[in-house]
Amino acid sequence: MNCIFCKIINNEIPSQKIYEDDNFIAILDINPVSKGHTLVIPKLHCVNLFDMSDELLYKTLKVAKKIGNAIKKSLNTDSINLIQNNGADAGQLIFHSHFHLIPRFPNDGISIGMTHKKYEEGEIVKYAELIRGGF
Amino acid sequence: MNCIFCKIINNEIPSQKIYEDDNFIAILDINPVSKGHTLVIPKLHCVNLFDMSDELLYKTLKVAKKIGNAIKKSLNTDSINLIQNNGADAGQLIFHSHFHLIPRFPNDGISIGMTHKKYEEGEIVKYAELIRGGF
Repeated sequence: MNCIFCKIINNEIPSQKIYEDDNFIAILDINPVSKGHTLVIPKLHCVNLFDMSDELLYKTLKVAKKIGNAIKKSLNTDSINLIQNNGADAGQLIFHSHFHLIPRFPNDGISIGMTHKKYEEGEIVKYAELIRGGF
Repeated sequence: MNCIFCKIINNEIPSQKIYEDDNFIAILDINPVSKGHTLVIPKLHCVNLFDMSDELLYKTLKVAKKIGNAIKKSLNTDSINLIQNNGADAGQLIFHSHFHLIPRFPNDGISIGMTHKKYEEGEIVKYAELIRGGF
């Protein structure tokens, strides 16, 4: 399979590995949002969140928490963004599901989800009805 | 406890509820990054990811996937960002752990983690060593 993360997992492409166990690797993103930006990657090739089993999601979050704690301790911060992008329109670049851990620092100038839209009068109620209809 | 999410969970503050079960509510963010931006909130008051038990994380991701699927279906998109912010420096505004589901659309002009820093020569290796030392 021509997947860059599968190749990294198989050591066919070099990476800066932070962590590895039977089911996961964690590596440094080479284009970091902040220095220490880490990717938690299940070894099983899943496309995105919706393609991951509940069991695998559980293991992923458990290991993300462990790695997040190591980042906090080593980089001396309490602030981390956990981000997981699904789909090209959401900025997903590599279609092998992965979770970003982005260490954050005071006044680091990074903006994640800080620009907001406004609902027109009554529009939020319509959106709530719409989404409730999607279950 | 003077927590706005606890008050929303207890129906002391109104919200646009998308979903509710014994352990979670999901509501529309009133300051949405995109329309349909939903918050998945455990009823148990936890401060952040690092304060959530593995069991609760399992349940949270399971319900986030379910709600994400409803958003995808109802808003007719395959693209969603899952974001969870820990700490004030990471943009966490309400200190009751919550997961954002942000529906995304072609050319929506939203930028999440798309500005990148560069490591100096050899610096990525030092960061990898540093974080590996944090376990």
